[in-house]
Amino acid sequence: MERIHGGDIYSFDKDVLDFSINTNPLGIRHEIRAAAISAIGDMDKYPDRKQLKLKAAIGKMENVKPEHIICGNGASEIIFALVSAVKPKKTLLLSPSFTEYEIAVDTAETEKIFYLLREEDDFMVKEDILDRIGPDIDMFFICNPNNPTGKLIDNDLMKRILDKCCENDTCLVIDESFMDFSERFSECTMVGEAEKYDNLIILKSFTKMYSFPGLRLGYGISKDMDVVEKLEKVRPPWAVSNIAESAGIAACSLTKHPENTRKFIKREKKKMCFQLSNLEEAGVRYIASDTDFILFTAPDVDHRSLYDLMLEKKILIRRCGDFRGLDSHWYRISINDAPSNEKLIQAMKEIYRGG
Amino acid sequence: MERIHGGDIYSFDKDVLDFSINTNPLGIRHEIRAAAISAIGDMDKYPDRKQLKLKAAIGKMENVKPEHIICGNGASEIIFALVSAVKPKKTLLLSPSFTEYEIAVDTAETEKIFYLLREEDDFMVKEDILDRIGPDIDMFFICNPNNPTGKLIDNDLMKRILDKCCENDTCLVIDESFMDFSERFSECTMVGEAEKYDNLIILKSFTKMYSFPGLRLGYGISKDMDVVEKLEKVRPPWAVSNIAESAGIAACSLTKHPENTRKFIKREKKKMCFQLSNLEEAGVRYIASDTDFILFTAPDVDHRSLYDLMLEKKILIRRCGDFRGLDSHWYRISINDAPSNEKLIQAMKEIYRGG
Repeated sequence: MERIHGGDIYSFDKDVLDFSINTNPLGIRHEIRAAAISAIGDMDKYPDRKQLKLKAAIGKMENVKPEHIICGNGASEIIFALVSAVKPKKTLLLSPSFTEYEIAVDTAETEKIFYLLREEDDFMVKEDILDRIGPDIDMFFICNPNNPTGKLIDNDLMKRILDKCCENDTCLVIDESFMDFSERFSECTMVGEAEKYDNLIILKSFTKMYSFPGLRLGYGISKDMDVVEKLEKVRPPWAVSNIAESAGIAACSLTKHPENTRKFIKREKKKMCFQLSNLEEAGVRYIASDTDFILFTAPDVDHRSLYDLMLEKKILIRRCGDFRGLDSHWYRISINDAPSNEKLIQAMKEIYRGG
Repeated sequence: MERIHGGDIYSFDKDVLDFSINTNPLGIRHEIRAAAISAIGDMDKYPDRKQLKLKAAIGKMENVKPEHIICGNGASEIIFALVSAVKPKKTLLLSPSFTEYEIAVDTAETEKIFYLLREEDDFMVKEDILDRIGPDIDMFFICNPNNPTGKLIDNDLMKRILDKCCENDTCLVIDESFMDFSERFSECTMVGEAEKYDNLIILKSFTKMYSFPGLRLGYGISKDMDVVEKLEKVRPPWAVSNIAESAGIAACSLTKHPENTRKFIKREKKKMCFQLSNLEEAGVRYIASDTDFILFTAPDVDHRSLYDLMLEKKILIRRCGDFRGLDSHWYRISINDAPSNEKLIQAMKEIYRGG
C-alpha cells in the first residue's frame, strides 16, 4: 500500500504553511530544546539501553510502574516491534485508521480483518465491534482518538472491548498518541487499565504533544512482562538516542503544557469548525473532532483537487486518499496557530467562493 | 542469550575509564557537534523520510549510488530489518561474532549454522568456510574485521565467499563497521563489490569512526533493489532523526579523519600490544588485531576475574563470556588515548605483577 505521511515538507518549498502534521500548535517548549542542546554533550557516549531515567520520568507522569514502560524510536517503532513480538495469525484493524498498523502487520504475514468505519456513522466505532472480537483474533489495533477521523471511542464501549479482548486472549493495542489533545482525555484514557489487564498495551508519543517529531520518541505501557521482555528481544539494543531521552525527561516535567494545549485547541478548533460549516453549501463537510486535527471532504474545482489548489497558495494539507476506506476528496488538517488557521480558511473561501 | 554490550557506563561510577566500547579514540570532531547543535532548530519538524541529503553525502563518500543506500537508527536497526525483509530459513553465522546477528536472526525462527572460529587458528576464517555455503543457506552474516576478534578476512578468500554465495543465492551481509580503522581497509573493503553483486549487502556505522553512538546512525549499501524496497516496508517510516542526519552529513565531509585515525590507532596499538606481550608469562595472550580493539585472554587472580579487578581500579573492560565460543577469561579492550592506554597497562601490571 502507498505510504503517505504528513509533515513531508522536503518535497515542497521551504515557506509552505504545513497543515499536514498533527503536532502541538503551541510548538516546542524552550525547556525541551535546552535539554536537547545540553544532551549534545553526551553524543559521544552510548545511550542507556535500559532508559532508566526516562522510564522513571514517564512512570511518574503517567502514574505507572517504570518496569511496565517500553521506550522506542517513535511510537511507530514500537508498533513494528509489537507485531514482531506477538506474531499474530489474525489481526483486527479499523478502517480508515493510521496506515502503519497495516504495514507493520504485513511483516508478520497475518490475516487482516477490517472493521469498516462508515461515513454515515461519522466514522464512529459502534457496538457491533464486539461481534468481531473472538478467539481467532490474536491482535487488535485501535487508534483512540482515531487518525484520521479524530473520533474517540466512548469509555463504556472501550471497557467492553477490553473485556472481550481479555476473554479471547486478544492482544489489544490502544494507540493514544492523540489522547492528550482531547477534552475528554481523563475519562477516555485506558492508561489506568494497563496496570490491571495483561492483554492491553497503550502506545503514546512525545512527538505530538511536545512537538519534537525530528527527535523520535514514543513509549508503550503494559503489565504483560512476557510481551515487554519479548519486545526487548526483537529490537535493536539502542532504540532511543541520548538527545531524545533528555528531551523526553524534560517534557515529563511540563505538567501544565497539556492543559494549556487543550484550552488552545478547543478555542481554535471551534473557530475553524464554524468557518468550515460556512462552506457547507460549496460541498465541504467536516467530521466533528475529539482531538487536534479535523477530517473533511471537499469537492474538486474545475477538475482540480483542493490539495493542488491549496498548494498553489503555499498551504500543505494532508490528502487522505491513501487511507483504506477514504476516497481522494477527503483531507485532514491540523489546528495551527491563529493567524495560520485564518490563512487556511481564507484560502478555502477564495477557492470555493472566489474570495 | 545474554545481551551484554560495551559502553554500558550507566551501571557504574561516572568517572570509570571506559575501554569497553569500540569508538574512535580521537573523539568527536567539532564540525559534527556543531552540525548536531544546529539541527536542534529543526527538532519540531518531521525528519526527511527519504534522507535524500544524507544519502547524497554517503554516496559521494563511498562512491556508490544514493539509491543503493539504506539509512538506519544505527547499523543494528538495519540488521533486524534485514532479517525481517529476507526471512531466512537457514542462516550461517561466525562464532564468536557480534551477538546482535544471532538475536536478530532469532526473530525469524531460522535454523542457525555456526562456523566456529578456533583459538588455535587465531580465530581466522579459513578456506573451509566455502564448504559451509550451499543452496540451503539463505543468509550469511560476516563481521569484517570481526567483533570481538579484530580479525580481517583476506581479500582473496572474501571474493571466493562472495562468489560462492552468489552461485547459491545466499544473501551475504558484510558488516564493515570496523573496516575504516584497519590499515588494510582499501584492499579489504567490499563496498565496490556492492555495486556489482545482487546478493551482497554492506553495513557501515557512523557510531564508531565518527564517535557519536549517542545519536544512532548507520547505513547499508546494496544494489539489490528488491531488498532495498523490502527494507523500507518492514521498518517504521522515520528511522533517522534530524540530528543524526545532520551529524552524518557533516561526518561525510571529514575526508582526512579516517586516515588520521588509522595512523593514531596503528601507533597506540603497537605500544599496547608490546605491553600485553610483556604480560605473557602471567598468562595473558592477545590476538593480533586488524582494527581498533584487541581481544585477549587473561587468568583470574585469587579467584577474582580481571574484569572485577580492573573495575576496582575504575577501569571498565569488555567481558566476552557472552560471545558464543569464548569463555569468561576473554576480554576486549579498545584503543584509547595515550594516557588512558598507559593507565590500563599500568593497572594490568599491578594486577599480574604486583605493580
